[in-house]
Amino acid sequence: MAMNFAVLGAGRIGQVHAEAIASVPGAVMKAIADPVEAAAQSVRDRFGADIRSIDAIEAADDIDAVVICTPTDTHADLIERFARAGKAIFCEKPVDLSVERVRACLQVVDETGTPLMVGFNRRFDPDFNALKSIIDAGRIGRVEMVTITSRDPGPPPYEYIERSGGIFRDMTIHDFDVARWLLGEEVETVFATGSVLVDAEIGARGDFDSANVVLRTASGQQAVITNSRRAAYGYDQRIEVLGEKGAVSAENQHEARVEIADAEGYHRPPLLNFFMSRYTAAYAAEIAAFVAAVKDNTAPPTTGHDGLMALALAEAAVQSAASGRQVHMQDILN
Amino acid sequence: MAMNFAVLGAGRIGQVHAEAIASVPGAVMKAIADPVEAAAQSVRDRFGADIRSIDAIEAADDIDAVVICTPTDTHADLIERFARAGKAIFCEKPVDLSVERVRACLQVVDETGTPLMVGFNRRFDPDFNALKSIIDAGRIGRVEMVTITSRDPGPPPYEYIERSGGIFRDMTIHDFDVARWLLGEEVETVFATGSVLVDAEIGARGDFDSANVVLRTASGQQAVITNSRRAAYGYDQRIEVLGEKGAVSAENQHEARVEIADAEGYHRPPLLNFFMSRYTAAYAAEIAAFVAAVKDNTAPPTTGHDGLMALALAEAAVQSAASGRQVHMQDILN
Amino acid sequence: MAMNFAVLGAGRIGQVHAEAIASVPGAVMKAIADPVEAAAQSVRDRFGADIRSIDAIEAADDIDAVVICTPTDTHADLIERFARAGKAIFCEKPVDLSVERVRACLQVVDETGTPLMVGFNRRFDPDFNALKSIIDAGRIGRVEMVTITSRDPGPPPYEYIERSGGIFRDMTIHDFDVARWLLGEEVETVFATGSVLVDAEIGARGDFDSANVVLRTASGQQAVITNSRRAAYGYDQRIEVLGEKGAVSAENQHEARVEIADAEGYHRPPLLNFFMSRYTAAYAAEIAAFVAAVKDNTAPPTTGHDGLMALALAEAAVQSAASGRQVHMQDILN
Amino acid sequence: MAMNFAVLGAGRIGQVHAEAIASVPGAVMKAIADPVEAAAQSVRDRFGADIRSIDAIEAADDIDAVVICTPTDTHADLIERFARAGKAIFCEKPVDLSVERVRACLQVVDETGTPLMVGFNRRFDPDFNALKSIIDAGRIGRVEMVTITSRDPGPPPYEYIERSGGIFRDMTIHDFDVARWLLGEEVETVFATGSVLVDAEIGARGDFDSANVVLRTASGQQAVITNSRRAAYGYDQRIEVLGEKGAVSAENQHEARVEIADAEGYHRPPLLNFFMSRYTAAYAAEIAAFVAAVKDNTAPPTTGHDGLMALALAEAAVQSAASGRQVHMQDILN
Repeated sequence: MAMNFAVLGAGRIGQVHAEAIASVPGAVMKAIADPVEAAAQSVRDRFGADIRSIDAIEAADDIDAVVICTPTDTHADLIERFARAGKAIFCEKPVDLSVERVRACLQVVDETGTPLMVGFNRRFDPDFNALKSIIDAGRIGRVEMVTITSRDPGPPPYEYIERSGGIFRDMTIHDFDVARWLLGEEVETVFATGSVLVDAEIGARGDFDSANVVLRTASGQQAVITNSRRAAYGYDQRIEVLGEKGAVSAENQHEARVEIADAEGYHRPPLLNFFMSRYTAAYAAEIAAFVAAVKDNTAPPTTGHDGLMALALAEAAVQSAASGRQVHMQDILN
Repeated sequence: MAMNFAVLGAGRIGQVHAEAIASVPGAVMKAIADPVEAAAQSVRDRFGADIRSIDAIEAADDIDAVVICTPTDTHADLIERFARAGKAIFCEKPVDLSVERVRACLQVVDETGTPLMVGFNRRFDPDFNALKSIIDAGRIGRVEMVTITSRDPGPPPYEYIERSGGIFRDMTIHDFDVARWLLGEEVETVFATGSVLVDAEIGARGDFDSANVVLRTASGQQAVITNSRRAAYGYDQRIEVLGEKGAVSAENQHEARVEIADAEGYHRPPLLNFFMSRYTAAYAAEIAAFVAAVKDNTAPPTTGHDGLMALALAEAAVQSAASGRQVHMQDILN
Repeated sequence: MAMNFAVLGAGRIGQVHAEAIASVPGAVMKAIADPVEAAAQSVRDRFGADIRSIDAIEAADDIDAVVICTPTDTHADLIERFARAGKAIFCEKPVDLSVERVRACLQVVDETGTPLMVGFNRRFDPDFNALKSIIDAGRIGRVEMVTITSRDPGPPPYEYIERSGGIFRDMTIHDFDVARWLLGEEVETVFATGSVLVDAEIGARGDFDSANVVLRTASGQQAVITNSRRAAYGYDQRIEVLGEKGAVSAENQHEARVEIADAEGYHRPPLLNFFMSRYTAAYAAEIAAFVAAVKDNTAPPTTGHDGLMALALAEAAVQSAASGRQVHMQDILN
Repeated sequence: MAMNFAVLGAGRIGQVHAEAIASVPGAVMKAIADPVEAAAQSVRDRFGADIRSIDAIEAADDIDAVVICTPTDTHADLIERFARAGKAIFCEKPVDLSVERVRACLQVVDETGTPLMVGFNRRFDPDFNALKSIIDAGRIGRVEMVTITSRDPGPPPYEYIERSGGIFRDMTIHDFDVARWLLGEEVETVFATGSVLVDAEIGARGDFDSANVVLRTASGQQAVITNSRRAAYGYDQRIEVLGEKGAVSAENQHEARVEIADAEGYHRPPLLNFFMSRYTAAYAAEIAAFVAAVKDNTAPPTTGHDGLMALALAEAAVQSAASGRQVHMQDILN
């Protein structure tokens, strides 16, 4: 039996998920909801989905699952609402910008027993997945240090920055999840520092554009995350893990696997420049994993708890960058 | 208006094309024909296509185009038949193993004015395409030397070898087409040499498993093609072009973009091991190009003439490998 | 006129410098001093140098310059002594483990006007030098973030660790110097964290074996240094610099430029495993730069001040790793 | 006991060998001979060697070995002369352009029992050596195909081309030797084709500037050599060997191990542009191997026979390029 999906929100990320659903066997892109009619029509025309209201989707018998791609401040409410409506839920990160609110929301989810998956697409990237499998297979022994380089091609609009909760919550949050996934042990302390090097206006809006974060677990494992809102050469997404027996790294994706050699030297194309082209395969694999978990009645691979923990790490980073001290996660979580 | 396709032949390559059609916007995978019922059913179940006979497809009003994936010795007849039936035709290479038969067939195609595209998927590979664009943009100046390395992971079944016309016609034929495409000038002479190094039984069946070919145009451009029916490390598909101002190369595709470093050194995964995974994007782009050409009423990017020329080069290679002399293409084509 | 050198200390690093001197045109490896006779004889036999006492070298008319490769706790005294003796001085890092002692020593050097160069060999590595030239040429615009990965193949003897002042003073000190060199602006704050992941005995001796350091300048530039006392795959020495217009990186050196492809994948040799083979060219270039500076009567490229600043950064890292807070350099230097 | 060398010929290659001798322990750069006084003086000044006449060197008791770097047409005579004088002889390739003359010369060498090494520096390149060791260790199984890419940065002076015997004798000769070394079996047939693509004047002087050669052994192993007298991106020197269990390749050497990433893409420096910088280590290792062979009274690793065979392959290539047929080596050698 195919699983029928409704996507809430027809913006950029809603379209990404609609395309992912359409490409996954066993998933049907059934309905789209968006107050902006043109956006909803575009998804309808491209994927053959109905346009429906959120209310209608909530009440519909022919919808098995929703993918929440609406603005962040609506996520928690929608999760609670659809949990009570008995739909399986896939929600884009973050659940909310407030750790308290996330906790309350997850309690509702728990009580209803609804399957909830929070979208951390990077875990589903084929290369990052191969890296994780190599670690799990014991090829590098115990993990000692994780190094994540994560840089956007260019900064988002100022309005986004003002509402996003800042770089640690809108950008590093992905890296926090990846770090937790790879360390295999919860983080104990967080140190973060941020600068404004790319655009002074970003600073004026209260955010950083350049940041480094150091995470540490109880056993002493460390992770470094290096972020920038600008990389002239494309969307820079790399991971490197050092273990007792060696290291494993996942490389960037260039626009093409070609190289020109001329009198100036050797030249390869820049990186894929956009998260949608860079992570196409990851978005599809993510939806496939959600479908499989719901069908098999198993826990989704990225849960509400994962969403909570990544958010808590972001909260710790915000505090550390302000204070110049490492922050203990127990002070955030208790 | 969507273009409705029927695929003739539900074997491995038929399935590849069915999948490509299903993934191309504007193309509909409508019908499949195959005398082996299980094969046809598998395609029907996977892509939602009808099972029909070739006769029914020929007569059908709702089929705009056929993709011919039947055994080689049926290609020319089917092309003629569907040309007369007024369907657009995409035919897997080769049109026939005989240059004479190909010529006769193409004459029918010409007379009917049917669009015919011959499947040379490599021209549509995104990396090879990027390489060609770089040449066309003048980045390396005039093309002087082309080097094509093309090695299969392992030999095909003996029965295939016996019917395929041998390594130059079943394997090098792709490289001949790529060489013509990149040289931009017709080949004047062909030298080829073949050995049996992989499996003596291949020699006993009258074929080579290891070959090198040197092509030369009237202006002195050269191309080298290096083939083997076995590469322990995967499906080795590389191109390198030297020009007056530099060189451009297209690299292989590994299973994942990861690298392990340990006490033994640095390790990357082997190459994608199968033409279907290696050239997935190419097969889809090929069908998309066919759809576009038929809709726009322009010549398909790889024509019956291209099929003829690649076959003639293979014929020349067979003769050269037998005689130890370079063969003049005018002796093959006149 | 050739410059005559005496090397003080015939241990491992003394031999490295003797070899460097022997390979530099205009430098003569004239004398060696070491209380261990066998060590001194080995250098004498290999490079044709006299064995002399430190007193004799101090008094000698035919010695223009000394290279101090004795234990760290003798460096400052020897610098003062040879400064007063009017010899040009090249001293291995560090000048001393105490910032106070270094300052006092440098004052003597200043008063005597002696040329003093402190050995930070990495600045002279051809690849790191090429990276620096690219930055200086403006190719990546303003420097925003520096990432230094620096890992030893394996830990040094316990006795070394006990006397060295710990990982930040014996290992990271090189990276501190490289960071200062590349940032082009003095560091304002230092955050460091250390773990014991490689060998518990290192912890028992009061040191870390795994560390990350984050440096920050007044304008917000950041540098991350990642250290480990063990890398199974060799001596890992990489630099990456992000600027407003792009990034530049310097790669590791493998034992050979070869790659094996087999059924398991693609394999390259491990890294050069020892600082002496990895930095052979750097050590020679370093001595050549010293000779040039002394002859031209210009400031050596790495001065006593550089030695002081790197040591002060190490001191800050020690304090930060103990306190969990970032340390302000003004608190160390004032 | 150190071995005293005299170098005959103070041109470019003579200087290369003088420098190699100076850098090899156990070898002493004692004397230089050249009719051009300025050239001889330059070597004398740089390496501290005496200037002597060839006659004086022949008669000298303090010269153990000569390195012949004079014009090609003097090689055979000088070999015979110094063989009779009882000096160990290192001669730059080729011994002579005539197979007959080489044979006569080698007979004199045989009769006198003089150690003679012919300079094929590439076998001593550390990377090519590592590749050979990997083959010898059985890592890729039986060798099936060798691919050698060998391109000069730019063409030599016309006068050189006129005297050199043409591209197959002055350039490919190195590749012929490498092919023989790696195949491990003598070549049976040679096919070669040459074009004039770089400079029409080279054609007017009777030579090619672009060539491909296919070699084949009795057992069916094949080697392809791709040459050009121009590569805009530097001195292109690569080897790739396919075996039954995998492949091994040796990569080029860039000016530095750095990479710039910017909006245009990723950029590495061009290749080392000159045989002297590219093969510095090879020239030193070559002289060291000569010294070791003479001291141990063993056969030098590259003998007069190797010189003869490489020349015979060049002769076959010349004939093949003229006739368009593969040439049997027995027709050249008998």
